[in-house]
Amino acid sequence: MLKLDNHLSGRHFLHIPGPSPVPSRILRAISYQTIDHRGPEFGEFGLKVLDGIKKIFKTEQPVIIYSASGTGSWEGALVNVLNTGDKVLFYETGHFANLWRALAKRIGIEVEVVGKAGQDTWRWGVDASVIEERLRKDTQHEIKAVCVVHNETSTGMTSNIAAVRKAIDDAKHPALLLVDSVSGLGSADYCHDTWGADVTVSGSQKGLMLPPGIGFNALSPKAIEASKRSTIPKAYLAWDEILESNKTGYWPTTPSTNLMYGLHEAIDMMQTEGLDTIFARHQRLAEACRRAVAAWGLENQCLDATAYSPVLTAIVVPEGMDADVLRKHALEKFNLSLGTGLGKLKGKIFRIGHLGDCNELSLMAALSGVEMSLGAMGYKPKASGVVAAQDYLK
Amino acid sequence: MLKLDNHLSGRHFLHIPGPSPVPSRILRAISYQTIDHRGPEFGEFGLKVLDGIKKIFKTEQPVIIYSASGTGSWEGALVNVLNTGDKVLFYETGHFANLWRALAKRIGIEVEVVGKAGQDTWRWGVDASVIEERLRKDTQHEIKAVCVVHNETSTGMTSNIAAVRKAIDDAKHPALLLVDSVSGLGSADYCHDTWGADVTVSGSQKGLMLPPGIGFNALSPKAIEASKRSTIPKAYLAWDEILESNKTGYWPTTPSTNLMYGLHEAIDMMQTEGLDTIFARHQRLAEACRRAVAAWGLENQCLDATAYSPVLTAIVVPEGMDADVLRKHALEKFNLSLGTGLGKLKGKIFRIGHLGDCNELSLMAALSGVEMSLGAMGYKPKASGVVAAQDYLK
Amino acid sequence: MLKLDNHLSGRHFLHIPGPSPVPSRILRAISYQTIDHRGPEFGEFGLKVLDGIKKIFKTEQPVIIYSASGTGSWEGALVNVLNTGDKVLFYETGHFANLWRALAKRIGIEVEVVGKAGQDTWRWGVDASVIEERLRKDTQHEIKAVCVVHNETSTGMTSNIAAVRKAIDDAKHPALLLVDSVSGLGSADYCHDTWGADVTVSGSQKGLMLPPGIGFNALSPKAIEASKRSTIPKAYLAWDEILESNKTGYWPTTPSTNLMYGLHEAIDMMQTEGLDTIFARHQRLAEACRRAVAAWGLENQCLDATAYSPVLTAIVVPEGMDADVLRKHALEKFNLSLGTGLGKLKGKIFRIGHLGDCNELSLMAALSGVEMSLGAMGYKPKASGVVAAQDYLK
Amino acid sequence: MLKLDNHLSGRHFLHIPGPSPVPSRILRAISYQTIDHRGPEFGEFGLKVLDGIKKIFKTEQPVIIYSASGTGSWEGALVNVLNTGDKVLFYETGHFANLWRALAKRIGIEVEVVGKAGQDTWRWGVDASVIEERLRKDTQHEIKAVCVVHNETSTGMTSNIAAVRKAIDDAKHPALLLVDSVSGLGSADYCHDTWGADVTVSGSQKGLMLPPGIGFNALSPKAIEASKRSTIPKAYLAWDEILESNKTGYWPTTPSTNLMYGLHEAIDMMQTEGLDTIFARHQRLAEACRRAVAAWGLENQCLDATAYSPVLTAIVVPEGMDADVLRKHALEKFNLSLGTGLGKLKGKIFRIGHLGDCNELSLMAALSGVEMSLGAMGYKPKASGVVAAQDYLK
Repeated sequence: MLKLDNHLSGRHFLHIPGPSPVPSRILRAISYQTIDHRGPEFGEFGLKVLDGIKKIFKTEQPVIIYSASGTGSWEGALVNVLNTGDKVLFYETGHFANLWRALAKRIGIEVEVVGKAGQDTWRWGVDASVIEERLRKDTQHEIKAVCVVHNETSTGMTSNIAAVRKAIDDAKHPALLLVDSVSGLGSADYCHDTWGADVTVSGSQKGLMLPPGIGFNALSPKAIEASKRSTIPKAYLAWDEILESNKTGYWPTTPSTNLMYGLHEAIDMMQTEGLDTIFARHQRLAEACRRAVAAWGLENQCLDATAYSPVLTAIVVPEGMDADVLRKHALEKFNLSLGTGLGKLKGKIFRIGHLGDCNELSLMAALSGVEMSLGAMGYKPKASGVVAAQDYLK
Repeated sequence: MLKLDNHLSGRHFLHIPGPSPVPSRILRAISYQTIDHRGPEFGEFGLKVLDGIKKIFKTEQPVIIYSASGTGSWEGALVNVLNTGDKVLFYETGHFANLWRALAKRIGIEVEVVGKAGQDTWRWGVDASVIEERLRKDTQHEIKAVCVVHNETSTGMTSNIAAVRKAIDDAKHPALLLVDSVSGLGSADYCHDTWGADVTVSGSQKGLMLPPGIGFNALSPKAIEASKRSTIPKAYLAWDEILESNKTGYWPTTPSTNLMYGLHEAIDMMQTEGLDTIFARHQRLAEACRRAVAAWGLENQCLDATAYSPVLTAIVVPEGMDADVLRKHALEKFNLSLGTGLGKLKGKIFRIGHLGDCNELSLMAALSGVEMSLGAMGYKPKASGVVAAQDYLK
Repeated sequence: MLKLDNHLSGRHFLHIPGPSPVPSRILRAISYQTIDHRGPEFGEFGLKVLDGIKKIFKTEQPVIIYSASGTGSWEGALVNVLNTGDKVLFYETGHFANLWRALAKRIGIEVEVVGKAGQDTWRWGVDASVIEERLRKDTQHEIKAVCVVHNETSTGMTSNIAAVRKAIDDAKHPALLLVDSVSGLGSADYCHDTWGADVTVSGSQKGLMLPPGIGFNALSPKAIEASKRSTIPKAYLAWDEILESNKTGYWPTTPSTNLMYGLHEAIDMMQTEGLDTIFARHQRLAEACRRAVAAWGLENQCLDATAYSPVLTAIVVPEGMDADVLRKHALEKFNLSLGTGLGKLKGKIFRIGHLGDCNELSLMAALSGVEMSLGAMGYKPKASGVVAAQDYLK
Repeated sequence: MLKLDNHLSGRHFLHIPGPSPVPSRILRAISYQTIDHRGPEFGEFGLKVLDGIKKIFKTEQPVIIYSASGTGSWEGALVNVLNTGDKVLFYETGHFANLWRALAKRIGIEVEVVGKAGQDTWRWGVDASVIEERLRKDTQHEIKAVCVVHNETSTGMTSNIAAVRKAIDDAKHPALLLVDSVSGLGSADYCHDTWGADVTVSGSQKGLMLPPGIGFNALSPKAIEASKRSTIPKAYLAWDEILESNKTGYWPTTPSTNLMYGLHEAIDMMQTEGLDTIFARHQRLAEACRRAVAAWGLENQCLDATAYSPVLTAIVVPEGMDADVLRKHALEKFNLSLGTGLGKLKGKIFRIGHLGDCNELSLMAALSGVEMSLGAMGYKPKASGVVAAQDYLK
């Protein structure tokens, strides 16, 4: 039998930037007996979930729920609104922006990359003026969509999506705005409608506090229009039949019933706590974490104070230290999981997730584990990060 | 909070042909805390699951585990080995064969349909000679693949896959053999390697006794070769990166960790009971069900005694009775879910699932619920089906 | 790790007259994290549970919740209202009445037994006239209490408690009325206040659908008065400190927090279904069961049609058959647990529980398992009990 | 439905000295379906549990498992070996020693209290010489038993039980040694046999990491002998029938099946980790906690360095601070439950539990919550206790 959660005594402290720890309420919800997804009970349940998820995206438009990971949902966003050979502008903020771009390329999209001018683009939030400038030059409107990452999980940066929308509008460009908020949704404020996103991609295992396995595409009327003209071959990820079926609370294919039980519970929990309270909690925990980083004398991967992420903090380790050795120590000695450096940041940073079902003392435990692990690496912090965080939180 | 399993007193009897009832052991397994799918523990777990699922497919070849429904897995089987415009031969045994065919068409595959000559092809298992004959005529080898359904869930027929392989071979045709065993795997014997399937598609919510949300593609070396030449745009469902990542027990994208906990548990349960014991149990329950049907004086949708399904039995209701009214009665009066008639069989048949975590008394409860509901519809059975089933089972 | 629920494929059919099958809602409720039973949250929870359980007993008086089995609660009922050497009248309806009497004797109570005159007292409900007659003779009021079993689990008989109260009153006797409704409460109608019980003893694992481990004493003002004069040494089972603590929702000693979570859930479920609906369901299932027994040509242990139990049916096996061999067969072949014959009925009867979370098809499954097992014992039933039960239920 | 674990976001940090946090493995175990406690499966299970619990007590003698709290088990220890009016010597180490004594008095035992001479006996471990001295004076052997608390939960002191045994032996006195290790067992080393305890009382909700509801009496041959002569009225708590039934793995009354599932799991977890490893972990966490207390400039309630408890630390708050205001702040602001001061220590101390399923970061979280709460009370600690604990733990 499964013995996974048994390898070390006591609680595991899962502080990677997703999957985030799943609350026991949600774990219990996904353990309800599976029901007939064609039965009368399911339709009622489906409508409730479809309605609830809109509130989390702050949208009045339909939200597609995929039985797929965030990657599948990335693909869904692209294949439904684009045609083979379309050009798409990707703004690079880190590893996940790159992965999405690579996926686009793989399915036959022509991609163009922009980033922060004259800077390490992995350390700054999206500079909307770069997008505006590029779109103004695209007088033929060859660019069909702009893809940006709301919260870049690899570098700990949250970008201003409303500013990107404004840039597109100011450039009087018809490009669709496709946003990845896989790790932002539910932890950082997100307004699909008022910010003018056309497709927002998200996943279950971050701010929604669910296990992985469910993904989302929140749509706009313009995106739905575009989907009617899209010719990339697709079936499982196609919106049309899902939108049709969803009207009565059902899905054209078998939905991931038990994860949807969890989604139902998560929405209930989030509405009970209140989205604003949730976002304020994340901001507070993130600031506490940054205070600790500063006290340690370490550098935040994000150099852009307007883009500090409420979801996670990526921390640059001192020259000569291998971030993954630190992470291994934290895991083996303190039962603490930290995020690794991705792509070119491998070994150079580690990431602390403070998202989802996280509170003050969970964060303090994580910071304490990091502080002790830094010490074990031979690093002498300027001051106690734990004390600095406490000074802020108390 | 979720109140789904609370609408009627006592146990719900879920006797649709999938999702099948999820055993409490598996429900508990999927409620384990989600772990880091990039951590050291996961790799070990991943290898164990990847190895275990091979034993269920009876294959030495890789098995792809998708975070997707059976539909996604159908698409995976096609997009990885075919090219746009390729011709594929579909054998029609019922609604699901048709749905798969429609999906193929939707993604740009040219489809051709064959079926039982001179008969209602929805009432007979696959006639391999029809396939052989067609392939012999295809001297240019325009047909790139043959698609058949192992266990047709809509009509309750299990076809002889080895015979289809032999037909292809006898025709000396290079077509790939793609098999849907979504509802067969784990309930009806299935031998991916020795039967010579190139891709076998399956899902989690049938014989594997899991909630929906995970799908499978079991591969052959020939399928893997074909995948290297396939040009249909694909990313999420592409095998290449998955095969590479799986070598160390990981996935390129976020796997459905908690459903995989359940898969691990299911494999453990199935190996403990023994596949042969499981298949014999299904055969026995199916025969008991057919005895009941015969006693009631009703007709089995399947007219082909060599193709009786051990997974489900589809039962034709008498002229003038609406099968869905019967089903509604069974659900509302007896907390019993029966399968509906799909496609052209809507209202004409109902289906009793006897798959997965089913035993003698679960089946007897279902048969009793059907017998009482038949009575409530004003039907006077020839004899008690329950007694007939008991006479066989005791 | 625990593999208990894994010994046979499919569902276990637990049809002993308690513990009854625990609904998954309750199993999930008892798996909530344990909280501080001295914290502010607990008091609120405690008050809610204490209030809810009163509604189940139909009383306005306090109900003691013990962390103890029914036996502990039997003892609690005696030690709180009696003094060493007090005489108590026990009416014998079966094995549990005898066990309670033996317990009373063991703790220093003088016991006197009465029963149905001129009959096998294990086959008739309580004859209140016997009690009245005895009390009338007790002109010195030496008898301090009358003990009767509401639903005798060993013989399947439910007695008229209001009639016993009337008998005591008609005899103008001050004896307390102590009632065991361990297996009756929540399945058979029970009115602690209007029927005039002074102490009603119950347990968790029957009509309340909980695991064993919690027991109850519902009190009357007269019982509380008596408890102030009782001198039998007691501490854990003493009411005084519990009553005092309960005022604010707490317990003087550590309560069985997690089983109380389950109790909270059970009360919620029962109030949602409605007590009257629950009792009618039990009556209907019991009648169906008796129809089956009659069809089989077997005898009900209970000869008293006014005392047929809605909770369980005790069935006399034919001469020469060993009821325990039948039960073993049912368990090993059909995963069906039936109740054994207790005391002098060992091997002569078996018992079918149809209480708690039981519905039509659960019962039909059990009856089918019994019918097949009877066949396997070589018994030829007069007619199919399953069909007879269906005829009634449909 | 139950919403108890939902009142604040994120994890609850339960750091009272019991109930300790129940690991999810155990919560899942207690949610297994209840089985027939008279069936064949149960006997096998019962024997396994009865054998396993002996290893936790380090005894070859029988261990009684009660469906009762620690208080019931205290009573069990007394009523089985004593007679009404017997004199028992209680050594006072805190509130729980007093509660046990009060219970003894209530059931008719004559009690005599001793304690640390010339000191506040609530701040020192058991001084065995005091016991020896008293027993030497008891030349008539009027004292039938000596009662001591192994780990006094109210004051955070662990006493030397072997020394008490030696004192009794050195005094050549036949008194039984009755030990309360409710909160010690499984967290502090305990050797029922080699330390010469006659009855050791314990409970489930401390080092065994279970919910409350199960209690224990570990016996010695001498205790079993004494039980044959004991005349205090008792039934539910009587050992004789339990010992007899336990031989085959059953109980005379209905056992608390689901909590016993949890006990089975706990024993498995503890044997996997290893008792020595568990005890070393507790010692390390306790030392870290004391370092924090010292850094804060606060006083440990325990002045006796040989009696520091590995289970909990009781901390004296500064003059003028109300410990319960501090605790309220920690609970409401940081979702942290701390233990209250009991009896005469009300408001003067708070207690940090570091027992059971506790690890370094759980403790660090608790210490951080305390440190911030101390700050909120206006207290300026000498130094950071969190840093001091980290310095020790890293």
